[in-house]
Amino acid sequence: VTSQRDRVQLTLFQLDNYGPWTVTPAPRRETDLQALQARVYASVADFVGRDDGYAFFDRFDNMIAVTNGIDEAAHATFQEWVRTQFPVTVSAGIGTGDTPVDALEHATQAIQAAGSAQSATRTEVLAREGTQKTSGELTVVHFDVVDATGTYTDRVSAGDAGIIIKRAAVELDAHLQRTHGAIANFVGGDNIIAICPPLTDTVVDDVRETILEETGVELQAGIGTGETAHEAGYRAKIALEECRETGDRVHRAAYAEH
Amino acid sequence: VTSQRDRVQLTLFQLDNYGPWTVTPAPRRETDLQALQARVYASVADFVGRDDGYAFFDRFDNMIAVTNGIDEAAHATFQEWVRTQFPVTVSAGIGTGDTPVDALEHATQAIQAAGSAQSATRTEVLAREGTQKTSGELTVVHFDVVDATGTYTDRVSAGDAGIIIKRAAVELDAHLQRTHGAIANFVGGDNIIAICPPLTDTVVDDVRETILEETGVELQAGIGTGETAHEAGYRAKIALEECRETGDRVHRAAYAEH
Amino acid sequence: VTSQRDRVQLTLFQLDNYGPWTVTPAPRRETDLQALQARVYASVADFVGRDDGYAFFDRFDNMIAVTNGIDEAAHATFQEWVRTQFPVTVSAGIGTGDTPVDALEHATQAIQAAGSAQSATRTEVLAREGTQKTSGELTVVHFDVVDATGTYTDRVSAGDAGIIIKRAAVELDAHLQRTHGAIANFVGGDNIIAICPPLTDTVVDDVRETILEETGVELQAGIGTGETAHEAGYRAKIALEECRETGDRVHRAAYAEH
Amino acid sequence: VTSQRDRVQLTLFQLDNYGPWTVTPAPRRETDLQALQARVYASVADFVGRDDGYAFFDRFDNMIAVTNGIDEAAHATFQEWVRTQFPVTVSAGIGTGDTPVDALEHATQAIQAAGSAQSATRTEVLAREGTQKTSGELTVVHFDVVDATGTYTDRVSAGDAGIIIKRAAVELDAHLQRTHGAIANFVGGDNIIAICPPLTDTVVDDVRETILEETGVELQAGIGTGETAHEAGYRAKIALEECRETGDRVHRAAYAEH
Repeated sequence: VTSQRDRVQLTLFQLDNYGPWTVTPAPRRETDLQALQARVYASVADFVGRDDGYAFFDRFDNMIAVTNGIDEAAHATFQEWVRTQFPVTVSAGIGTGDTPVDALEHATQAIQAAGSAQSATRTEVLAREGTQKTSGELTVVHFDVVDATGTYTDRVSAGDAGIIIKRAAVELDAHLQRTHGAIANFVGGDNIIAICPPLTDTVVDDVRETILEETGVELQAGIGTGETAHEAGYRAKIALEECRETGDRVHRAAYAEH
Repeated sequence: VTSQRDRVQLTLFQLDNYGPWTVTPAPRRETDLQALQARVYASVADFVGRDDGYAFFDRFDNMIAVTNGIDEAAHATFQEWVRTQFPVTVSAGIGTGDTPVDALEHATQAIQAAGSAQSATRTEVLAREGTQKTSGELTVVHFDVVDATGTYTDRVSAGDAGIIIKRAAVELDAHLQRTHGAIANFVGGDNIIAICPPLTDTVVDDVRETILEETGVELQAGIGTGETAHEAGYRAKIALEECRETGDRVHRAAYAEH
Repeated sequence: VTSQRDRVQLTLFQLDNYGPWTVTPAPRRETDLQALQARVYASVADFVGRDDGYAFFDRFDNMIAVTNGIDEAAHATFQEWVRTQFPVTVSAGIGTGDTPVDALEHATQAIQAAGSAQSATRTEVLAREGTQKTSGELTVVHFDVVDATGTYTDRVSAGDAGIIIKRAAVELDAHLQRTHGAIANFVGGDNIIAICPPLTDTVVDDVRETILEETGVELQAGIGTGETAHEAGYRAKIALEECRETGDRVHRAAYAEH
Repeated sequence: VTSQRDRVQLTLFQLDNYGPWTVTPAPRRETDLQALQARVYASVADFVGRDDGYAFFDRFDNMIAVTNGIDEAAHATFQEWVRTQFPVTVSAGIGTGDTPVDALEHATQAIQAAGSAQSATRTEVLAREGTQKTSGELTVVHFDVVDATGTYTDRVSAGDAGIIIKRAAVELDAHLQRTHGAIANFVGGDNIIAICPPLTDTVVDDVRETILEETGVELQAGIGTGETAHEAGYRAKIALEECRETGDRVHRAAYAEH
């Protein structure tokens, strides 16, 4: 199922000069900013989703997307659209690499090379770093918390539940980045989606164990591979459903499970 | 500045039976779900913002809002609006308490008492727990990371920057909930907003120190008080601007700083 | 049911310097403009709807709303919100009068007095003309086309159906403005909503006859009265349902039909 | 500039069983429906705009789009997306023809053949009628009212201005459909966009004269041609700018004016 040629393309979307804008001429209302950020993110999700990519809100002023197969012209059309829908503009750094961590580093460098995130003169950057070849398989691992509703949502305070799940997400991301070149993002509820290089089932199980030890949270994982984030991620979701039904803690979608 | 009568009202908004819906009849596209969740959250922010409340995305299927002064009828109108805008419905548990942690616990209990988050028959709950009196001052502490753009955004990979800031946010939330009855939420960029009972400047400085020791991230803090989340939060933003300009690590807005 | 004291407050929302902006620095993509305009209008509908007003898209760069009971502070908060959500700003002229036509004339004058719609220096006007008293009943007449689906939507081309219904709407508006001081707006499908001074059933039936003669389109009408546009309009909808069921061409909601 | 092989593909988007839904179980709030309809339309504009199509709100429950070059798979992805963003679903009838009127008739027939717009069992139809070949040039004529701001917006009441412009739009549409197989849609402000078969400048000038006689409104027209609605429409906008500057009443963009 895995291959030496696995490659990933990530785009880092960054709101231009956003921090200063939020306090000019006076601090804007916090809820207005929250609404704006969420709608810009929803738009990024729509943009990449249409071409089978994935999007993560990350820090909202910096958003990460898997954009295998989405070219610069499409990014430029999106930037033009943003400019007419929102009071802010967006820069895009595109990076490719053998692992998601490499690709994100390249995407970040592409955007950093063009100027500061808080520069008033750096606007709508569209830059790429890394080789252009983006064929090959992606691996997506979709994690969730074993019986999150019964254990947390319906039982403990929303405050405790939030800490538990968000801590598991951040420590999973840290562990995967450091150890496997993968990146993981909290995507709501008790779900965490990791974009990975090829990983064996045993490695994924070890990752689960590490997070259980570090945070006390038990995760289960569905693994999927495919040509696009959507294809791999859809299979990972199917595999995760399998975990929910069978009690397995790791399940890999058979390649045929479209 | 502080008072014995400080009280807070929080609302826990919970999407009804959301988990099962996302996989019925088959798993929905992840980016479609991301977009939906973000837009529902933006709507919650708009709803409470108009009456000077605050909203946090929390886990997206569970969202937390400060709703001092917003009554049940207004919540019901919002629920009716959601039903006509989105393919999902939302339940609301309203809780009051002496501290935000108390209020959130009450809000959670109100909603849990009505049924499971994954029950197909529990729809559009509107329940309150806790006394109705919601007068008195709120305290908002607006934290951000000292020179986040120069230290992280413009320098390290987006992957590292994300981990650093989100870990600081979750550990700050955990520490504040456990020790001071306050709740903290990451609100994008390098910003974390805490809804607090009255806290002295020294306590806030100690909290900063704790997070620096635990995570290596240096925070600065603006403190504001007011009758609503917006009023208190606006003053906290002004105070944080003061930190950015003066190099102070904690600044409290004078009460007159509207 | 009718009263001498019937009064209405309308707000004319006007996008500031919108025409020039759409072609600066070059013509923006038409679909991007269509999407922006529609979302701004949706936001106006949300804003007034929350306080039981009504909104009409009119020309999109000029939108008309029934805002009885919504004060200037609320309008100002909305303007501030628009500024942070969209790349355009909005001016608001508030007018009151004995009839909707009077009120709209006052609203228009309030905004015209502040400068041109295509002035680069006229931004976020908030002006009122007309006495402030806005108590009393509103009358809403909700029209639709008799058996529109069977006669048009399911039978003729969408091109023909569109002309038929939109022509009926514009001629109804022209007739009502000229003859009765009422304004009518197409609200989608085959629905036209008129904001009216008190009108007898016979007058409404005569209006129907006039439109049938002028355009060949047979309308039916539900009449409702109430303290707000929503209250009156809701009753008008109920009354229109009655027409659909009974074959009556004009029905007035009993005052008790909440 | 013109060609025998000019062909157009239109899609009729129709909300499924929308009328009944708006009154089930009781009439929904009118402003909630207005907001929903506007946002669905904005989404249609985004969908077709990304691939250089055009969209018109028409009756909101029936929307018309120029979709040359957009295939059925893309339509299906959009329908799937709608289902997860909104509480309504959408059917799509795709039609091609030698003229826009032909294409719209085919699109309408495709959707009508699948069942009634108010059938509870007809959901997410995706049907095509007409030959599939959609190559060749499109002609877009972008009309606006000569000095609309100075003559109407800044001078007369918004009520009068609305009638004047909307009547011109509907009569222009009726005339073009009947006489030239073209369809015209009001797109906000004082703008009307017509999708046309090849038309000479003289014909367009005659159309202007007819509308002036019928409604008293003087229009000017920019004509553009291109492979997509966006390309043709963009040129038409540039040509209309030329009218505004030179006082010409009809201007055709040179083919090179990209």
